[in-house]
Amino acid sequence: MERLRDAGEHAFLARLRRRLRARPAGESESTGDAAARLLVGPGDDAAVFAPSDLPIAVTTDALVEGVHFRLDWLEAEELGERAAVVNLSDLAAMGARPLYTLAAITAAPDTPVSLLDGILDGCARASEAGGAAMIGGNLASARDLSITLTALGEIPGPRLSRAGARAGDELVVTGTLGGAAAAVARWKSGEAPSEELRRAWARPSARIAAGLALAAAGAHAAIDVSDGLLADLGHLCAASGVGAEIERNLLPRSREVATLDAAGADFAASGGEDYELLVACPPEVSARLDEIARETGTPLTRIGRCTDRDGEIVLLGADRRPHRPRAAGFDHFSGPPSA
Amino acid sequence: MERLRDAGEHAFLARLRRRLRARPAGESESTGDAAARLLVGPGDDAAVFAPSDLPIAVTTDALVEGVHFRLDWLEAEELGERAAVVNLSDLAAMGARPLYTLAAITAAPDTPVSLLDGILDGCARASEAGGAAMIGGNLASARDLSITLTALGEIPGPRLSRAGARAGDELVVTGTLGGAAAAVARWKSGEAPSEELRRAWARPSARIAAGLALAAAGAHAAIDVSDGLLADLGHLCAASGVGAEIERNLLPRSREVATLDAAGADFAASGGEDYELLVACPPEVSARLDEIARETGTPLTRIGRCTDRDGEIVLLGADRRPHRPRAAGFDHFSGPPSA
Repeated sequence: MERLRDAGEHAFLARLRRRLRARPAGESESTGDAAARLLVGPGDDAAVFAPSDLPIAVTTDALVEGVHFRLDWLEAEELGERAAVVNLSDLAAMGARPLYTLAAITAAPDTPVSLLDGILDGCARASEAGGAAMIGGNLASARDLSITLTALGEIPGPRLSRAGARAGDELVVTGTLGGAAAAVARWKSGEAPSEELRRAWARPSARIAAGLALAAAGAHAAIDVSDGLLADLGHLCAASGVGAEIERNLLPRSREVATLDAAGADFAASGGEDYELLVACPPEVSARLDEIARETGTPLTRIGRCTDRDGEIVLLGADRRPHRPRAAGFDHFSGPPSA
Repeated sequence: MERLRDAGEHAFLARLRRRLRARPAGESESTGDAAARLLVGPGDDAAVFAPSDLPIAVTTDALVEGVHFRLDWLEAEELGERAAVVNLSDLAAMGARPLYTLAAITAAPDTPVSLLDGILDGCARASEAGGAAMIGGNLASARDLSITLTALGEIPGPRLSRAGARAGDELVVTGTLGGAAAAVARWKSGEAPSEELRRAWARPSARIAAGLALAAAGAHAAIDVSDGLLADLGHLCAASGVGAEIERNLLPRSREVATLDAAGADFAASGGEDYELLVACPPEVSARLDEIARETGTPLTRIGRCTDRDGEIVLLGADRRPHRPRAAGFDHFSGPPSA
């Protein structure tokens, strides 16, 4: 089996270039524009592209083995996809359209080259699926396997941020919540999650179309749900200077998470890593939610509303009384999932 | 002593924001433009800026403890500076003017917060010195301390790349060579390098003014010297389809590296991590070299020329006969400096 120490560092760029060349400009409708605007591709000191006159969004986020994932939890391609989606989701939360990704990978010298290939394939595939071309990166030796992805996008219409939500806005989430946390909880307890739960964790979706459509429709604020719904709702409210009230029974859960009853509801409220969007919509946008869901092919669910009680986050139980979920939410320094 | 596990992940963004706020738009002449064009700063899902109509260059590169550095070799601030300079140097080699940096850091939970502060201070200072604002980043738990920096710049004039050198071009380098490799060799042999050598390794310069001026003057190609002069010259020649002939006695060395005689010449020819620029200049640009050196405050030295012998790199000794340097050059998978 070929290992990284045999292939060397420069093999990385050759591999990256091959993946970009394999998908030339114009072949994929989604990445055609971004690829056509690429002036210098992977393999030089920097990649160069021609901007349009639209604002550019840029974000970077890392996945580290033993902290964010374990290799027996997912395939190499899924890992690459996940690294891309985690970042593309940040762009989606700004109302941005992805353009380019760069993947900086660290790995031990005895890492099989096939693992690197899988990661790059996954990164390239998820980038492309989001309309972005993978144009650069870096490979360095380290004990920890990690992928630090940088994603760039442009904002074609109104810009979303965490600030801007107003009292009276309805709170909307994409997709379903809690599946990723339920999968991690299974692994931590020593059981394997079902394939449905495993995929909820391993293969999140970047909600790009929904982010763009909700921004265009006039949404006020958005954040991606990475730390857990309540934690990220807290960030959105803090940035916007509002409070929020959400209803536990309205939180969208997959069939399997729904069968977990109270634990499932807690995963949905507090578990992290769903990478869904949480969006604050004024009533006139909320009124068009079904139409936007249909047009973007994205489930959209109203879960509550913003209040004028600055910083107060209330989770209402079925009895309409405040419900206290288990404190949770993902903090990288509270201990790795392997602990 | 406060440690990362106490401060938590969100403390990172607060620290980043504080550093950006401490230097508001317009205060620093160099970063004024970039800061003024920042629409969303650190702390949201992504940073957002308004592009001009100039092409945008983007690059990412990582420094990993035990592979690229050891903490007893440099101060935390120097480490942050170095992470920025390594990337700004890549922008300089494209003829780009830096705009923004993002710093994705991994560190163990018991890392002192003061170390993180030092790294961020250094990143911010070197970014600013290069005209860039630090607008984002990420902090994640890992065993390895690492900094993956992403740098964005824009290209105001002609674009440089590794391709474009022609037979007859003169080869020019900025600054001096070999000091960084000499320092690492000292450490590896168990001795401490002199402060001059240590600084050559720990505090490289990003040759931004020289890259911009040489590009504007009509240079044909450039690369930054990270893997070692001969290795990077090989990359430039391969991309350009030319050969090269350089003279060992012309390689610019600091006073101390010069006193190392043959070993010093080998460090200059083959040692890595100098982060100087190697530029292929047509004779009419080479003729203006003294003027460009004066205007940019950057030492510029002619070291040889490009030939039409595609891929053939010749190092000439004092006797004008080909000289075979020790094979060297930095490959991250050939073994860490701690080995």
